[in-house]
Amino acid sequence: MKIHPMWADYPELAPDLTATLDLIESQIRPQNAAVAEALVAMISAGGKMLRPAYCLLFAQFRPTYDRSKMIALAAAVEALHNATLVHDDIIDKATTRRGLPTISAQFGQDVAVYAGDYLFVVCFKLIAKYASDLRSVQQDSTSMERLLNGELEQMATRYDYQIDIDQYLHQVSGKTGQLFALSSFIGAYESGQPLAFAKKIEKIGMNIGIAFQLLDDILDYTSDPDTIGKPVHEDIKQGVYSAPLILAMSRDRDAFLPYLRQQAQMSTADLAAIQALMTRHEGIPQARKMASDYTARALAGLKTLPDQPAKNTLIRLTTALLRRQN
Amino acid sequence: MKIHPMWADYPELAPDLTATLDLIESQIRPQNAAVAEALVAMISAGGKMLRPAYCLLFAQFRPTYDRSKMIALAAAVEALHNATLVHDDIIDKATTRRGLPTISAQFGQDVAVYAGDYLFVVCFKLIAKYASDLRSVQQDSTSMERLLNGELEQMATRYDYQIDIDQYLHQVSGKTGQLFALSSFIGAYESGQPLAFAKKIEKIGMNIGIAFQLLDDILDYTSDPDTIGKPVHEDIKQGVYSAPLILAMSRDRDAFLPYLRQQAQMSTADLAAIQALMTRHEGIPQARKMASDYTARALAGLKTLPDQPAKNTLIRLTTALLRRQN
Repeated sequence: MKIHPMWADYPELAPDLTATLDLIESQIRPQNAAVAEALVAMISAGGKMLRPAYCLLFAQFRPTYDRSKMIALAAAVEALHNATLVHDDIIDKATTRRGLPTISAQFGQDVAVYAGDYLFVVCFKLIAKYASDLRSVQQDSTSMERLLNGELEQMATRYDYQIDIDQYLHQVSGKTGQLFALSSFIGAYESGQPLAFAKKIEKIGMNIGIAFQLLDDILDYTSDPDTIGKPVHEDIKQGVYSAPLILAMSRDRDAFLPYLRQQAQMSTADLAAIQALMTRHEGIPQARKMASDYTARALAGLKTLPDQPAKNTLIRLTTALLRRQN
Repeated sequence: MKIHPMWADYPELAPDLTATLDLIESQIRPQNAAVAEALVAMISAGGKMLRPAYCLLFAQFRPTYDRSKMIALAAAVEALHNATLVHDDIIDKATTRRGLPTISAQFGQDVAVYAGDYLFVVCFKLIAKYASDLRSVQQDSTSMERLLNGELEQMATRYDYQIDIDQYLHQVSGKTGQLFALSSFIGAYESGQPLAFAKKIEKIGMNIGIAFQLLDDILDYTSDPDTIGKPVHEDIKQGVYSAPLILAMSRDRDAFLPYLRQQAQMSTADLAAIQALMTRHEGIPQARKMASDYTARALAGLKTLPDQPAKNTLIRLTTALLRRQN
């Protein structure tokens, strides 16, 4: 199977990532052949496999480690990531992902709910089969709980006009940070590192994940040349607020309220007013600064690592990932 | 918390089941307080807790066993069962369950998808924390895979006019049988029984689960005095066929086809015709016979157990459960 073209720049990692993708594909064996095919297509359709990449890289600080075990655990985190994507797509009523119809669009919500559940279980199975010990499995399951907690928290704060950036960062650390943290932790711990080292790596992963989400939030506003009509404006109408908006709101909440209160009935003029307020209150520059701080923390953590080839790869990858402009 | 009144007849089991319910409640701690409350309400609203009951009973063939561990694992299987119910309710667009609004009706599908995922993870956490060894966790996750496979299979056979009873039994063994099998297996294995004994118990659990589902299928047709207008007729219109219909079809498939082919456009007259064909071809008597065979197999298995008080309780419970008339 073909992995994302970005890995052509990382020949040291490409073979293991390809093996990871092949393993996930071999694990997807529900009797429902149509769903099997769609899940395999989704997983191989150009997902960047960042979480498996971090898992595999953080394993490489041991002189020797069990390669097939690490590939299997990398596959587990990618299965988990895709499980959440299948479920997210039901909720967002998304019709396409990575250029293919979503599982929900293709088969209906019913199948998509169970297909996502199936991928959760593929993840559990791989962890159960390859983890070194029960403590490791416990750590993984605690991480998974935090991930879902983050998703549920986000739903509780819809239309919460008082939301502040700390609450938002707490959600992000669950929704996005946790899986990068878990992937990194598993890479270190399961390759045989002491728990203390693995916990340090886990924190680096968390910072990478948070920076990654903040950059995504910024891109939601900046990637489209049109000022109005972006998907993020749909989010605002649905009461889902992300970092640039929350940071701008923190400077003059009252100015935003009349527009936010329109909720799903927000007009193009309301959205334009919000956009103007965001510009005035430097929503995006504030968010960039915050992303930059998390990135710096992540890179500082990476720089404390032992001098191995993987250290350079990690710094290179993380810098490329988190220095995305615009 | 109050357990289902049926357990008043089983004072030997009631305290442990109450402890199981209390433990699940303590595990449900998402930050989203509204969802936490709804999940707790759902779980305590009169579910019979059959799966935990079998788990606890099959643990009692050891002279001593770790009671809190067995309660935690009983809680795990009940969490898993409820996870599938939350997801089923999204799919069936059910508005109530056990007299309360469903999670999907109360909060919307989005929240319901993640709430179900959260319960899957509560299950996984409890298994990870209390299982004796990794092999046990692997067994559990394989079981969970079969459960989801059963759900997905059922979706693949919608409107499959050629469906035969063996295919259906295969689905049922996944969808329903597997969780009774798993609960029983966990009870035996995790209380310290050898694997061979636990595997025998697992088969008994599977037979109980299949008999239970077949009786449910029969009740879908017989519990309502009205001949037309039952929820099962909605299933038929949606292409979901269960044992009584499949067994009747096996005797004269061609007669059924013109009506089944109407699919969701089936009229009251079409349903009446199907009902008449089912009566003519003894759909329900055949299904009763099949349920009876599985029940006999389950009870025969139970009778081979060592003579302990739990053996009598198991026979009494299973007989009451599976001799439901009408």
